[in-house]
Amino acid sequence: MFGKEVYEERRRALRERLAGQTGIVLFLGNAESPAQYRDNCYKWRQDSNWLYFFGIDEPRFAAILDIDNGAETVYADDFTLDDIVWMGPMPSVQSLAQKAGAEASAPYAKLFDAVREAQAKGRCVHTVPPSRYYNEMLLRRMGIDGASEPLIRAIVSLRLVKEPREIALIDAACELGYEMHTIARKGIRIGVKEQEIVGAMEAVTLAKGWGVSFPTILTQHGEIFHCHSHEAPVEEGKLMVIDAGAEASSHYASDFTRTYPTGGRYTPRQRDIYSIVYECNEYAFSLTAPGVAYRDVHIAVAQRMLSGLKDLGLVSGDPAEMAAQGVAGLFMPHGLGHNMGLDVHDMEDLGEDLVGYDDDQTRSPLPGLHSLRMARRLVPGHVITDEPGIYFIPALIAAWKKEKRDGGRVNYAKLEKEYLDFGGIRVEDDVLVTADGARRLGPRRLPASPDEVEEAMKND
Amino acid sequence: MFGKEVYEERRRALRERLAGQTGIVLFLGNAESPAQYRDNCYKWRQDSNWLYFFGIDEPRFAAILDIDNGAETVYADDFTLDDIVWMGPMPSVQSLAQKAGAEASAPYAKLFDAVREAQAKGRCVHTVPPSRYYNEMLLRRMGIDGASEPLIRAIVSLRLVKEPREIALIDAACELGYEMHTIARKGIRIGVKEQEIVGAMEAVTLAKGWGVSFPTILTQHGEIFHCHSHEAPVEEGKLMVIDAGAEASSHYASDFTRTYPTGGRYTPRQRDIYSIVYECNEYAFSLTAPGVAYRDVHIAVAQRMLSGLKDLGLVSGDPAEMAAQGVAGLFMPHGLGHNMGLDVHDMEDLGEDLVGYDDDQTRSPLPGLHSLRMARRLVPGHVITDEPGIYFIPALIAAWKKEKRDGGRVNYAKLEKEYLDFGGIRVEDDVLVTADGARRLGPRRLPASPDEVEEAMKND
Repeated sequence: MFGKEVYEERRRALRERLAGQTGIVLFLGNAESPAQYRDNCYKWRQDSNWLYFFGIDEPRFAAILDIDNGAETVYADDFTLDDIVWMGPMPSVQSLAQKAGAEASAPYAKLFDAVREAQAKGRCVHTVPPSRYYNEMLLRRMGIDGASEPLIRAIVSLRLVKEPREIALIDAACELGYEMHTIARKGIRIGVKEQEIVGAMEAVTLAKGWGVSFPTILTQHGEIFHCHSHEAPVEEGKLMVIDAGAEASSHYASDFTRTYPTGGRYTPRQRDIYSIVYECNEYAFSLTAPGVAYRDVHIAVAQRMLSGLKDLGLVSGDPAEMAAQGVAGLFMPHGLGHNMGLDVHDMEDLGEDLVGYDDDQTRSPLPGLHSLRMARRLVPGHVITDEPGIYFIPALIAAWKKEKRDGGRVNYAKLEKEYLDFGGIRVEDDVLVTADGARRLGPRRLPASPDEVEEAMKND
Repeated sequence: MFGKEVYEERRRALRERLAGQTGIVLFLGNAESPAQYRDNCYKWRQDSNWLYFFGIDEPRFAAILDIDNGAETVYADDFTLDDIVWMGPMPSVQSLAQKAGAEASAPYAKLFDAVREAQAKGRCVHTVPPSRYYNEMLLRRMGIDGASEPLIRAIVSLRLVKEPREIALIDAACELGYEMHTIARKGIRIGVKEQEIVGAMEAVTLAKGWGVSFPTILTQHGEIFHCHSHEAPVEEGKLMVIDAGAEASSHYASDFTRTYPTGGRYTPRQRDIYSIVYECNEYAFSLTAPGVAYRDVHIAVAQRMLSGLKDLGLVSGDPAEMAAQGVAGLFMPHGLGHNMGLDVHDMEDLGEDLVGYDDDQTRSPLPGLHSLRMARRLVPGHVITDEPGIYFIPALIAAWKKEKRDGGRVNYAKLEKEYLDFGGIRVEDDVLVTADGARRLGPRRLPASPDEVEEAMKND
């Protein structure tokens, strides 16, 4: 938790950005989330907006900020003797509220009274969309249906531009991610079960941080984006996609992807594709700078990718034209990157369009570009991922071929003959937009070029 | 997943035990549970009742069993092309339903129609209390309020008595737990941060199982039962309580506690208390047999514990009388043990009294005994924990002294002078009730006696 002045300042700034609005802002921290029965919960994780504005990392806290007069009250229940026996002594709610810079506190039940009172007076109750189902139930119980767009816009405008103190914490989360990936890379040995590598990798962030920032992807089927099966043994000649990150104890995230040749050296066919992806990653980074729209970076990368695929005979035509037609979406059906911060997809619960798109941007219907989570014009302090990938997805190839979506640009014969068992490749870094360009986050960069990767694996 | 005959037989048995009831049974599998935003979820964990009766380990499955005619339908949605791109190919709902022995399947939305139709006909819809908030919302949406006691009783009667195939899986989960605890014990070194030990320990079950069966307790403050802070470095002269277990990939749990001297040898004062706890653990095990009520085992253990504490001068009076008055509850405010199976506190979401108490038993108001989760007369196939403990909880000691709860039996002067900084000790094994007695689960027992523990730590 930062000093109370940090939270006071953030809430002051929030209220400033809500100028013109009236009513109250209702902040809901998280409750515990049951894994099995109600008392056997998943690892405790606070709501990110709550962490940002109040910092109190305990369950069942809430707060109301009165937009009109600036009054703030934190709602939570003090521990009983029974709680103390089971969970140990806890600071009082009042002392925690004070650490967050809020003067007033009250029992949790009073929250409902306060909301009811505001509603009875016809005042607006501003909330964000609930990410957890428990909070969704609370909002329904309070008769609150639908989130406040002004509140969402105000929060996004603040959280999107990271403070120096946040960037330091993201750098630290990236170092943890570096350590995770290094352990994982060293664990790639023919015959080892994938899950063994996952266990060793996740141990790093369990020992030094909060845990993983999202469920680990570690798979020899890189063409499946969210493959969470880790049952297979490592096989010779495959590509191992590892997409994983740490959530530090500060709750800031990191998120890296590397793609390794299971035997330590890429086959010529793998190296061809890998080189294109690596160059796209570097190219995107070189284009990342204030004032540039990240959607334009995505489009430039798609064109570069198509140019590389054309050299391999997999597509034919003018790369710029093909990019404009969305042909890259067959190979990279996802966007180039997303915002990252307290959430690994930062603020995704506030709505991708409000978070990732400027007011004058609309989401493109083009394959790939349609899935772009971050399109905005870049501003110093933005933290984004740079994660191009090329995948050969049999079901998608079949669908495109059948529906003739490619306008005759794709060499299906070659794809079907040589690439249906290829898998996929992705190379992902975390990037800070700086005053004059960009900086890769974390003190060390994971090996990225084909030569660097092979060299590292030789020495593992 | 077992063969389909297992699930068919369990549901047949369920219907049999629902003889006299009419209507439908609504089974709800789990949905994913968000950790942050809706698409960043905690590790997937299926509902235990669903696993027991259908075994399909995928999110958003449900089923209806018609009690009156035995018809069964599984409800879930097949993958779209978009799902396949993100999550890989999935077997069809129909083929999964067939693997569970259910002939009919339908899209998830039809579930609501089927429930509505039953309700319109005035048929009873039997459900269990929801453990996850998502399912609680679903039930509210369907206008179902309150669970079916006949259904709960039928499920409890089945799940409480473990099948041989389940016992084999629990034995395997216990072996994983053994490995976790062994790694943890070897990691206890003065100066090491507790969290480092947690990371190494949890890595074992992440690499070979599903994960932890509950949030790990690893603390030098054993007097706090659910202490989940792991910030402290290991200090000389302390007691380290490690209460942790594995959930195997089969989803069966293990749950062990050991209490280690941080420097490798118990101090005389620690050894005195440890010896009492260890003897209570052995004594409870020796009493565990079919026909014996586990509540009586708890009471016998409480008496033995008081007798040991009397020898140390911490209480005075007749141990049997003190046990009957609940004096042991100052030192062991929890019950002797709980059921264990697919849940680490098996079926706790079905209600502790219906799960852990026979019809002719009522929960005692006595401290300690009041918290007993498993009081039933034992039956071969019951799987329970044996976990006596002695704790010196400053807040509880102060409350008892102030309220004179002990009837003059407790030597507060000695407690306050010598034991307020002691912490706590617990020794826990997992036990199967057999035809003629009991067997500790798992192929190997963790070192338990004071000598065994010290010997193991010497060799670590």
